Amino acid sequence: MSPGRIELRGKPIQDLIGHLSFTQMIWFMTMGEELAEEKEGLLEAALVAAVDHGPQAPSIAIARMASTCGVDINNAMASALNVLGDVHGGAGEQAVELFSQIRDSIEQGTPIKQAVEQTVQHWQLSHGKFIPGFGHRFHNPVDPRSPRLMELVREAAGRNSVSGQYAEIGEAVARHLENRARRPVPMNIDGATAVIFCELGCPPTLARGLFCLSRSVGILAHAYEQTKQGTRNKGPVPPDYLWTYEP
Amino acid sequence: MSPGRIELRGKPIQDLIGHLSFTQMIWFMTMGEELAEEKEGLLEAALVAAVDHGPQAPSIAIARMASTCGVDINNAMASALNVLGDVHGGAGEQAVELFSQIRDSIEQGTPIKQAVEQTVQHWQLSHGKFIPGFGHRFHNPVDPRSPRLMELVREAAGRNSVSGQYAEIGEAVARHLENRARRPVPMNIDGATAVIFCELGCPPTLARGLFCLSRSVGILAHAYEQTKQGTRNKGPVPPDYLWTYEP
Amino acid sequence: MSPGRIELRGKPIQDLIGHLSFTQMIWFMTMGEELAEEKEGLLEAALVAAVDHGPQAPSIAIARMASTCGVDINNAMASALNVLGDVHGGAGEQAVELFSQIRDSIEQGTPIKQAVEQTVQHWQLSHGKFIPGFGHRFHNPVDPRSPRLMELVREAAGRNSVSGQYAEIGEAVARHLENRARRPVPMNIDGATAVIFCELGCPPTLARGLFCLSRSVGILAHAYEQTKQGTRNKGPVPPDYLWTYEP
Amino acid sequence: MSPGRIELRGKPIQDLIGHLSFTQMIWFMTMGEELAEEKEGLLEAALVAAVDHGPQAPSIAIARMASTCGVDINNAMASALNVLGDVHGGAGEQAVELFSQIRDSIEQGTPIKQAVEQTVQHWQLSHGKFIPGFGHRFHNPVDPRSPRLMELVREAAGRNSVSGQYAEIGEAVARHLENRARRPVPMNIDGATAVIFCELGCPPTLARGLFCLSRSVGILAHAYEQTKQGTRNKGPVPPDYLWTYEP
Repeated sequence: MSPGRIELRGKPIQDLIGHLSFTQMIWFMTMGEELAEEKEGLLEAALVAAVDHGPQAPSIAIARMASTCGVDINNAMASALNVLGDVHGGAGEQAVELFSQIRDSIEQGTPIKQAVEQTVQHWQLSHGKFIPGFGHRFHNPVDPRSPRLMELVREAAGRNSVSGQYAEIGEAVARHLENRARRPVPMNIDGATAVIFCELGCPPTLARGLFCLSRSVGILAHAYEQTKQGTRNKGPVPPDYLWTYEP
Repeated sequence: MSPGRIELRGKPIQDLIGHLSFTQMIWFMTMGEELAEEKEGLLEAALVAAVDHGPQAPSIAIARMASTCGVDINNAMASALNVLGDVHGGAGEQAVELFSQIRDSIEQGTPIKQAVEQTVQHWQLSHGKFIPGFGHRFHNPVDPRSPRLMELVREAAGRNSVSGQYAEIGEAVARHLENRARRPVPMNIDGATAVIFCELGCPPTLARGLFCLSRSVGILAHAYEQTKQGTRNKGPVPPDYLWTYEP
Repeated sequence: MSPGRIELRGKPIQDLIGHLSFTQMIWFMTMGEELAEEKEGLLEAALVAAVDHGPQAPSIAIARMASTCGVDINNAMASALNVLGDVHGGAGEQAVELFSQIRDSIEQGTPIKQAVEQTVQHWQLSHGKFIPGFGHRFHNPVDPRSPRLMELVREAAGRNSVSGQYAEIGEAVARHLENRARRPVPMNIDGATAVIFCELGCPPTLARGLFCLSRSVGILAHAYEQTKQGTRNKGPVPPDYLWTYEP
Repeated sequence: MSPGRIELRGKPIQDLIGHLSFTQMIWFMTMGEELAEEKEGLLEAALVAAVDHGPQAPSIAIARMASTCGVDINNAMASALNVLGDVHGGAGEQAVELFSQIRDSIEQGTPIKQAVEQTVQHWQLSHGKFIPGFGHRFHNPVDPRSPRLMELVREAAGRNSVSGQYAEIGEAVARHLENRARRPVPMNIDGATAVIFCELGCPPTLARGLFCLSRSVGILAHAYEQTKQGTRNKGPVPPDYLWTYEP
C-alpha cells in the first residue's frame, strides 16, 4: 500500500471491485486464491444457510439486548459475535476436523465404515460424548437446512465441481450414529456446512471464521431491528415475568 | 420457527439456500425485501471495496494482536469489529446522513449547488470541521477505490438501475470543498460507498452495519493469517523498537 | 519500564504493593494522584454499591448467556462490559456532567434553586426528557442504595473530608423534579454515585469508567457461577416458554 | 430483589455499603463468603500488582487504539479485556492449576521435591514446554513484583493468616526449573499471584477472573488518558515508520 495505491494479495483493489462477488472476495481474502466459478454456489449456500437462528440463540438475543443499552451497532454486533465460542460457534469447526480425520484414515487404506467407527470412538474418548455436526435438540428429527445443502453438494459432485467424498463421509457418520442409537441422528446445519467447507478445501479454524461472517448477518439484522424499536435497557425477559414481588 | 421448520422473514430457509446469493441474503435479512437483480452488482462492489485497509488500520491491528493472545477467532474478530466506532467506522454512516439531507433540500426546491453549500455549512456548525466521505490523510490526492465505485454507479444509472441522483450530489460536494480549499478534496471510500448505499435506499445506521460486515472479512483474513503464524503475545511494535533500556 | 523495573506513574511497583489498597490504586492509576485517606471510604462505597443489579440487567444477563457458549471468562466479561453504553452505563457519567453544570452556574452567582431549574431545563432541551440520576422504573419509590450513599456523603462532609456541595445540588434537583411532577422522583444509584464522584473531583468520562470497574465484579460473579453450572447454549428464556409449536 | 429491596447473596445492599471495602466485596460476590480480615491484605496486593504492564502489552495497546476510534470507554475496555486469553491472561489460572496438582500429590504422601518433578513433567507432556508462572522474556532475571508479593505471603504465613504451603510449592518449582536449566528461572507475576490465590482458596477459573478485574484498572487508565489526548484513528505505530512509500 502506498498513497493512491491499494493492493490486496497482490491485486489492485480497483481491479477487484466490480469483478469479484462479495462471496468470491471472502474466499480470496481468507484463502489467498480465487474460488473456481463452479464452486461458488456451494460457498454461497453455506453462508446463506447459517445467517440466523432466531432470538432464542444466545448470539441473537445478545445483539438485541445490547442494542437497547445505547451502544452503537458495531458494539452490539461485537458483543454477539464474541459468544460464537466452542459451544455456540465451534461445532462446524469441530465437524471439519472430524471429517478430515476420517478422510485421512480412508486415505491410509481403511474402509470408510471402519474409518468412521474408529474415528468417532477416538473422538468421544478425547472430546466427550458430543459428536459435532449431528443431532439437534430442537429440530428433531430433521433440520430443514441440512438436506437442502446436501442436495446442492450432490449436484455439484454430479458435475464434478467437487469430489463428493466428504458428503459420503458425513452420511456414513449419520448412519453409524443412527445404528448405534437406534433412532435417527440426522446431520445438522454444522455438519452440512462442514461437508461443504471440506469439499472446498477450507481448514477448520477458517470454517469457524466463515460461520462467524454468516451469523454476523443475522446479528446485524436483529440489532438493526431492535435499534429501530427504540426500547431502552431491555432485559432478557418481560419485566412481569421473572420478578417475585413480596408484600 | 418450530421443530423442523425455519422461516426467515416469512420464507422457508430451504427455499432461500441455493437461490439467493450471500449478498442478496444480506439485503433480504437487513432490509426485509429482495434486492432487485440489476442493483446487486452495486451492493457487491460496495461490500468488496471496504474489506481491508492494511495492518495500520486500528481494526486490523487489533485483530492481529488479539490472535496472539490465545483467544479464539470469533473473539479476535469481536475485539476488532468493536472499534469500528464513530471515527473509524462511522464516516460512511455520516456521509449517508449528509447526502440525504442535501437530497431533502433539493426535493424542497433548492438548486443543488445551494443545497450543498447550505447543508455543508450547517453540518460543520453542528458536527465540527470534518466532512464525512471526502479527503484522505494517506491516499492523497486519490483513493483508487472511489473512482472505480463511482464508475459503476454511473453505469448503473445509465441503464436506469438506480437514479444517479446521489452520485451527482456526492460530486457536487467534492467540487464545493475543492473550490473552498483551492486544492483537490476527492471523495474517499466512505463517500463512494455512501453514494451507493443512498442509491440503493439503505438508511444511515444500516450503512455502518454493512461496512462492519465488509470489514469483518479483512479482520477475519488477518486474524486467521496471524493465528497460523503462532506468535505469542505480540505487542504493537517490535520489542526492540520502543523500550528504553537504562543501564 | 526496563528489565527488572516497573514504575507506575513514577513509583516503583514494589513500593505500591502492600501499601496501597486496590481502591487507592484505582484512583492513583486513573487520576494520577494519591487519594486522601479520609476520602477513601466514599470511593469504596461508590464502587461497592454498583457491583450488581441481578440477572434482569442486560449486562448480567449477557455475562450468564455468554458463559454457556463455550467462551472463556474474560470473553464473557467483555461481551457484558461492552453494553454499559449511554443508556445502561452512561447515566452516572451524565449526572456528573449535570451536577457540574449546576455548580458552574452557582459559582457564577446564580442562587442554587434557580441554577437547578435553568440547568435542568437546558438539559432537557438538548438531551431529551430523561434527567440522569433520578427516578427508577423498578425501585419505586426508593432505591435503597441512594439514601445509604448520601448518608455517607453527609458524614464525610460533617468531618470536612469533602465539601458536601454536590450533595446539596443533588438534593435540590430531586426536590425540583418532585415539585414539578407532584410525586417523588428520588435520586437513584447513578445520581448518588455521581454525587460522590463529583465530591471527589472525578471527571464525567472517568465516572463511567469507574462504574464499569464496579459492575465488572457482578459480571464476573455471575459469569463464574454460570460457568460452574455447565449449561450449554442457554437462551434468554427457558425453551418451553417462547416457542409456539405448530401442529 | 423487589422494588425498594436489593439483596446480594442474602445481605441487604445498604448493609454492605460503607462496611465492606471494594476488595472484600469482590471476594464476597465471587466466592460467596466474607474474606477474613487477616487475609484481605494479600488479596489487595495481588489485585494491585497486576493492574498494568505498559503500552507494549497487547491489552493496553488495544485499549489505547480503541479509544482513538470514537468508541465509548466501556467499549475500549471491552475490546482490551477480551484479549486476556489463554496466552495473555491465562498463565495465572494455569499456575493455580499446577500448584493445586502438586499439592494434591503432596497430600497423597509424595515428598515435595518429587511431587514437583513429576507434576512439572506431566504438565509439559500434556500442555507443551511453557511452565506457567515462571520466567519472563522481558524482566530478566527478576520481575520486581514477585519478591515483594512473596514477602507478603511469608509475613502472612508467619502470623498464621495463611498456611504458606503454596509459597513453598512455588519456590520448589522455581528451584527445580533452575536446576534443570542451569540458569535462574524466577517466579513471575503470574506465579506469585497464583501462590496468593491458592493460599486464599480461590479456584483456577476465578483466578483468571480476578486478574481480569485487576488489569481492567490499567486498561481504564490508559483508555482514559488516550481519550483525553483526542487523537483520531491511531494505528499501532507512528505513520512514518511502517509505510514504504514508492515513487
